[in-house]
Amino acid sequence: MDIQKQIYKLTEIGIALAEERNLDKLLDKILRETRLFTGAEAGTLYIRDKDHLVFAVIQNDALGSRCQKITQNLRGQQLSISSSSMAGYVARTGRILNIEDVYQIKEGSEYHFNPEFDKKEGYRSQSMLIVPMKDAQGNILGVLQLINAKKENEVIPFDSSKEMLVLSLASQAAIALKNAQLTKKLKEVYLDTIYRLSIAAEYRDSDTGAHVRRMSHYSAVIAKHLGFSEEEVENILYASPMHDVGKIAIPDRILQKPGKLTKEEFEEMKKHTLIGAEILGNSDSKVLQLSEKIALSHHEKMDGSGYPYGLKGEQIPLEARIVAVADVFDALTSPRCYKPPFPVPKALEIIKEESGAHFDPRCVEAFLKGLEEILEIKKKYQELENEK
Amino acid sequence: MDIQKQIYKLTEIGIALAEERNLDKLLDKILRETRLFTGAEAGTLYIRDKDHLVFAVIQNDALGSRCQKITQNLRGQQLSISSSSMAGYVARTGRILNIEDVYQIKEGSEYHFNPEFDKKEGYRSQSMLIVPMKDAQGNILGVLQLINAKKENEVIPFDSSKEMLVLSLASQAAIALKNAQLTKKLKEVYLDTIYRLSIAAEYRDSDTGAHVRRMSHYSAVIAKHLGFSEEEVENILYASPMHDVGKIAIPDRILQKPGKLTKEEFEEMKKHTLIGAEILGNSDSKVLQLSEKIALSHHEKMDGSGYPYGLKGEQIPLEARIVAVADVFDALTSPRCYKPPFPVPKALEIIKEESGAHFDPRCVEAFLKGLEEILEIKKKYQELENEK
Repeated sequence: MDIQKQIYKLTEIGIALAEERNLDKLLDKILRETRLFTGAEAGTLYIRDKDHLVFAVIQNDALGSRCQKITQNLRGQQLSISSSSMAGYVARTGRILNIEDVYQIKEGSEYHFNPEFDKKEGYRSQSMLIVPMKDAQGNILGVLQLINAKKENEVIPFDSSKEMLVLSLASQAAIALKNAQLTKKLKEVYLDTIYRLSIAAEYRDSDTGAHVRRMSHYSAVIAKHLGFSEEEVENILYASPMHDVGKIAIPDRILQKPGKLTKEEFEEMKKHTLIGAEILGNSDSKVLQLSEKIALSHHEKMDGSGYPYGLKGEQIPLEARIVAVADVFDALTSPRCYKPPFPVPKALEIIKEESGAHFDPRCVEAFLKGLEEILEIKKKYQELENEK
Repeated sequence: MDIQKQIYKLTEIGIALAEERNLDKLLDKILRETRLFTGAEAGTLYIRDKDHLVFAVIQNDALGSRCQKITQNLRGQQLSISSSSMAGYVARTGRILNIEDVYQIKEGSEYHFNPEFDKKEGYRSQSMLIVPMKDAQGNILGVLQLINAKKENEVIPFDSSKEMLVLSLASQAAIALKNAQLTKKLKEVYLDTIYRLSIAAEYRDSDTGAHVRRMSHYSAVIAKHLGFSEEEVENILYASPMHDVGKIAIPDRILQKPGKLTKEEFEEMKKHTLIGAEILGNSDSKVLQLSEKIALSHHEKMDGSGYPYGLKGEQIPLEARIVAVADVFDALTSPRCYKPPFPVPKALEIIKEESGAHFDPRCVEAFLKGLEEILEIKKKYQELENEK
């Protein structure tokens, strides 16, 4: 490949990396693309976390499908930034290491090869190219370790003329990583804020904060099993916690009444759907537009007996039909001042019974498909609750 | 410059671009860096908005400081994606145009040069290199128009061997642009959501939604004039709208009482600071940590006469001291059920009088420095209010 072609290839890879905003996919892609570029059979990607390196991805064509498991086991394990490992040495010094055979590193060298992985997995590491992932300020955000360059089934040394190109690529990868991390952080903060404020809006109600967290994750699971795209699932996760913000406008005497509501009081209570839609309405944002729909219609029922408009079937936005199942399931399985929590089988029975009447049968089906995930979510937030 | 050096330069520029997340700065940087790379005296950057190109930045060393004004005037103006302009032709076809002299373009050519700008500004465009900004999928996100390559004060044609490098750079710029736009969008959605939910939390109160919007922008202005960094100012903008979420837990009979509160009722009312801090507390997010501080301490006073803890001076977090000024100024200049809005001079008088007693003198000073901006914000949201 001539130098011009290499540049185009390099830019192409850089662009593909820069566009990937899903952090896990990005990490995988960075390692895969740099391996392809250098012809490496295997490789490891480490990310810097303060004064440590953390295993992020391991790829090894010789080990095949075992790699995923190895990655899972090693993921999150730490390596100190010091000469005790080669990656640690690169992270400490910012230098590139290009070694013909790691088992031939001389004693007294500034860095050391640790043969533990080879022994355990029955692999033979030989040539290695290890480069730092630097940002524009020269900060080292991670380390790329490329193992065993191959040519016609022979392990050969890494081409030293490619070192600088790999370093460039690693730096582009570093920025992509930084951007993906920033986006992830932004989204986490966004969701955390939605939860806090939605809980605030439900503070006067009997609900605990865990309700909005649980029901939003349940809704996301149902959406996923209905075949929604990743982005649509995420939007439901963000939009659904706000479904009851309209309750804010319901007077204490109704919202906190211990007994049954009178007809007039219930009419007042129903308005929380309309008020919620008003608070969330007229936004340019997809998430808020969706939250408006959900707030307005999450009490509609398939048979037209719901409120505020008595919409039927497909007239009700699908996302509101999803949230209806998630919301009711959580209400059934949670304690309320007027009832203990129902056991899951009892709650499932009620949900199934109401399929076609209260609930959209497709949503109930998707809910049942995702039941295992839903019970995991329930368990997780139960534990969080108990920890308090 | 040899090809190796050019590659490094290219990657360096790409990385610098990818790191810039402020959209305005990024656009400026993209044009500046590509001009430097090609030796162009002038240039224009267009961004695609659906089926149009929109002027984003104009740079022209020959026109000097007039450029900023020209950019301001042209900014947002549209160009159709068609052969009626050269940039439009490039956006339509995705081709690179490298023209020695735009006044020599033959009649019957597929694209046309529009001499209007030259006439108006007394400039002579001659050589031009126009490249599309493509993402990894080949979508055209913008067009870079580089004008008059210079060598020793002579206009020369653009070096055709550099075309592909400039195209690479333009593509890297395209991704950086996409990322910056996405981040901007995410932040806008975040802020919009905070406003909606904070308004919800204050729904039972007499406040209109515009209060949280105004006071958060006032707080940001004060922070800016205190020398806070851009990020810190942004954090205050996001955190301050949530200052009163704790009011959610205050019963209707106190929150909505028309007359003066009894001592016991006021003690109850004061708890909104503690409850707000509880709702927002224990988060990993900087914005929420800041909002917790502000919720807790925005009713403290410099002389120790505030609540909930009667903190004095520097004991009160600076951000809470900022919000205190912004919050009170907005309350003074807004109508309440028990008072008409005070005119601005009267409100300023009160704020100044309370400097050192209620308010931190440094915050009052910063507030007065930013008064012009603050009154603009006030006017803007006044108008939004009236439109409803």
